[in-house]
Parts: sequence; structure tokens; C-alpha cells
Amino acid sequence: MSRAPHTRPLRVYYEDTDAGGVVYHAGYLRFMERGRTEWLRTLGFEQRRLAQEQGLLFTLRRMEIDFMMPARLDAELVVATRVQRLRPASIEFEQLVQDPQGNDLCRAIVLCACVEATRFRPTGIPQSIAEAISGGN
Amino acid sequence: MSRAPHTRPLRVYYEDTDAGGVVYHAGYLRFMERGRTEWLRTLGFEQRRLAQEQGLLFTLRRMEIDFMMPARLDAELVVATRVQRLRPASIEFEQLVQDPQGNDLCRAIVLCACVEATRFRPTGIPQSIAEAISGGN
Amino acid sequence: MSRAPHTRPLRVYYEDTDAGGVVYHAGYLRFMERGRTEWLRTLGFEQRRLAQEQGLLFTLRRMEIDFMMPARLDAELVVATRVQRLRPASIEFEQLVQDPQGNDLCRAIVLCACVEATRFRPTGIPQSIAEAISGGN
Amino acid sequence: MSRAPHTRPLRVYYEDTDAGGVVYHAGYLRFMERGRTEWLRTLGFEQRRLAQEQGLLFTLRRMEIDFMMPARLDAELVVATRVQRLRPASIEFEQLVQDPQGNDLCRAIVLCACVEATRFRPTGIPQSIAEAISGGN
Repeated sequence: MSRAPHTRPLRVYYEDTDAGGVVYHAGYLRFMERGRTEWLRTLGFEQRRLAQEQGLLFTLRRMEIDFMMPARLDAELVVATRVQRLRPASIEFEQLVQDPQGNDLCRAIVLCACVEATRFRPTGIPQSIAEAISGGN
Repeated sequence: MSRAPHTRPLRVYYEDTDAGGVVYHAGYLRFMERGRTEWLRTLGFEQRRLAQEQGLLFTLRRMEIDFMMPARLDAELVVATRVQRLRPASIEFEQLVQDPQGNDLCRAIVLCACVEATRFRPTGIPQSIAEAISGGN
Repeated sequence: MSRAPHTRPLRVYYEDTDAGGVVYHAGYLRFMERGRTEWLRTLGFEQRRLAQEQGLLFTLRRMEIDFMMPARLDAELVVATRVQRLRPASIEFEQLVQDPQGNDLCRAIVLCACVEATRFRPTGIPQSIAEAISGGN
Repeated sequence: MSRAPHTRPLRVYYEDTDAGGVVYHAGYLRFMERGRTEWLRTLGFEQRRLAQEQGLLFTLRRMEIDFMMPARLDAELVVATRVQRLRPASIEFEQLVQDPQGNDLCRAIVLCACVEATRFRPTGIPQSIAEAISGGN
């Protein structure tokens, strides 16, 4: 679990900002979800297919998030995603949103649980995904 | 179809604004959807139950929208919703977002179609809804 | 600081949900911000006037958030907001999103800092606000 | 004004979808704004610098939008942006959101006006931008 984090670039648009002139705080959660989704895709898995074919969703259980510096319109940012801990039915991530100079704007510890798509009851992470994570991170 | 429009008050929060200091344009579509949903609720129908019990969704087909004046943080607005035309499988609304002085900030003609919830194919509006609209508007 | 929490009702619309069929996780941050804004308004303060007249913003510094149960379309929820700790330049809140049966769907500890509106540098909470909080909570 | 449209790829994430299982209608407006912003950037202009250095914003005045087919989670889409008409103080765009097979999911005619950033009063499009549009489109 010590590989380089997965990174995904993104751009700040008007939709992401608020009247304070900077990125609206909930926007960072959207950015981080894009990061986790693309990380999962690099392992060969798509959330829609997981839901349809295996009846599984990854759902957020807990998040600790520090907002350190504001980001402004047109900024080019990067979301860095790293698996910090893999458990039988959940994954703990560390995620950073950084500016092009490498400053941390936002940092979060994110706990995602694997649940049944219909009833949201916890279930084990499929072995194929667990192996891809262990091998790929 | 000449009754007074249904009105729903709303408040502008940071989440609705952008770095221009005013309501982000796509926010008005969210406001108008709240208005249509509450209008439908006053007729006795809820979208989640329609989807679950009758397998129906109302989906947007077309919108003509004029953005006339900006709205700012903390503003108290009203969404006015009026059925302009009821067809067998669609409803045409006129919707206005107004400030407390009655100024029109945004005006739209909105065409919603009734579709099957799974395949999004057009289907007739249930008679119970059509009657409630005809009687109630 | 032991008074009953401020509560604000809200309704779940399509805009708040995602393809999992439940409220999108970042939506709870929007709900909680509505709660803090209305809490502040009951004390007699509006964020837009604070920014314009005193050059101040309240900005999120840190959030610990637990997502406990999903909420679905059309649900009627309540955001409960309580000041947990008042510091010279920041406020710590406890916030809950609950369903009509009083179940906790989401719980957060939220740290908001008072900053200059232009440069986002920390600054003291104005005495008028601090007094209103101490008296009112 | 007959050049090939500017195109920008995008991916559908959970944040873009709603409980109907497809992209939430207002999401297309966000997608189209990303398209116009990137189109402007290819001409050498950034909205934040326009606001700061010239006191100008481009603001939406009118939109006619047809929602033709739904898009689902994980879909790879393209936003195509083409200037249809350049006027002294406004630009009319035609924008399409398409799937990888080239199907039109959503089509809009979008009228953007150039306004003063503080008071939102109409003002002429700077000559440098008008020339870049005429030359570049």
C-alpha cells in the first residue's frame, strides 16, 4: 500500500464556485469522488457495472476533511487518491486536492463501505477488486 | 387552466451562487423543479411513489428560459408554477422566479413528458393525475 | 451552550439524489450549510451583509462527518444545529440530519473560521455575534 | 462562422445523476458551461482574468434546450460548442452534448451577454475577443 497515489487533473468552473469567490466547500467532495471513481476505473472496475452486474455500491461512511486553502475560478487542480487501508467490507482512502505548485488545498480521510445496491446493507468487497487493490496500490 | 399559479418560497444560499456573486444559472432549474414537485404534491402525487407504484417518471423534454435579473445571496424568492397546457403524455408549464417585490428574475416554458421509469419511453399521463390537473388548475 | 438545537426542515428533491437512488453524499453538506445560515439568521445576522458591511466570511476549516443511513427522494428531513464551542476566531458546531422519526441519518462536527472576505485570513468574530451566540445558545 | 465546433470530452459521475438513474437535467447546463469556458480558453481568454482585469462577465440571457436522450453513470460524453452569431454585446451559441456514437443527447441555443461584473449592465464585447471569435470560428 505504498505506491504513488493515483492522480486526476481537474479545472475549476463557475459551477464549482460560490459568492465568496472560491470553490464551494461541498465541491471538494465532488472532486474527490471523481478521483476515487477514476482510481477504480484504472483497476478495471466501473461503478455502474458493479451495481448492475453484482448489485454492489461503494457508499461513503465517514469523512474527515480539512479545508486548508481556497481555490479560485479557472484554477487547475489535481486530486490525489491513495488507499490507506483495505478491510473486508470497506476501504479507507487518503485524498488530497492540490494546486499546480503542489500546495495542499484540501485533505481528507475517506471511509467507503461496500453495500448491497438495493438495501444498502454492508457486504464484502469482491475478491477480484480486493486483489486488484492489493496488487495495484 | 386559468387559476392562480402555485407558489413556493425559497431562500438563496451559498450553494446556489457562483463567483459572479449571483445565483448560478443552472440553479434556477433546480428552483423550478422544486416548484413543479410541490405543485404535484398539492395535487396529491409524489414522484417517488409514482416511480415505485406506477413505474412512471416525469422527465424534462424542452425548456425555453430567460434570465432577466440576477439574484444574490440571502434573497427570498418565490417560484410560481402554472400549467399552460395538458396533453395526453406531456405537460407544458410556465414558471417564474420572482423577488419579494414581484420582479421576474427568470421565466421559463417547460415541457415535461411522462415516461416509463426504466426505459424512458413516452407513456400516457395516468387519468387520476390528468383529472387532478384539470380540476386543480 | 446547552440550549435546544436550532432546527430547519427540508425536503429531498431530485437535485439532491444520485443514481444510487438516495441523497448524494455532498448534498448533506449543502443541507448543513442551510442549517448554519438559518441559525445565524435567527441571531440577527446575514452572511451577505457581513461580507458587504464588515468584510467578513465564515469559512469551513474542518469537518468530521458520519453518513449513517441513506435518505430517499421526497423525504422530509430536519437539520439540527448546535454550537458546541465558541472560540475567538472560530465556531465549532454539531449538526445532525434526521428523518421524521428522529433517526440520525448524518452527523457532523463542523469547524467554521471567521476570515477576511478578500484574502481569507483569519480574523476575530465580531463581539456582537459572539454575544448573540453566547446569549442565544 | 462555419468552422468545426470546439469539442470537450467529459465523464458522467454520481454527482451528475439523480434517482431516475440518469443525468439530472440541470447537469447539462453545467456541461455546456464547461464547453463554452474551454472554447473561450482556446481563444486565449479566461473568465477570471476578464472579471479582474476588464471588469467583465459573460452571463446567460436565454437558453432553448431540448433533452433528447438520457445519459447514464460512467458514460463518456462530448460537448460540442459553436458560435452561431456574434453581436456587439452578445454571443449566440449552438451546443450539443453527444454520446460516443455521435447521438445527440441534448441540444441548446444559448445567448450569452457581456456585462459589467459589478452591476450586470450590458456592455460591448472587447474588440480583442470579437476578433478572436471572428478569426477563430
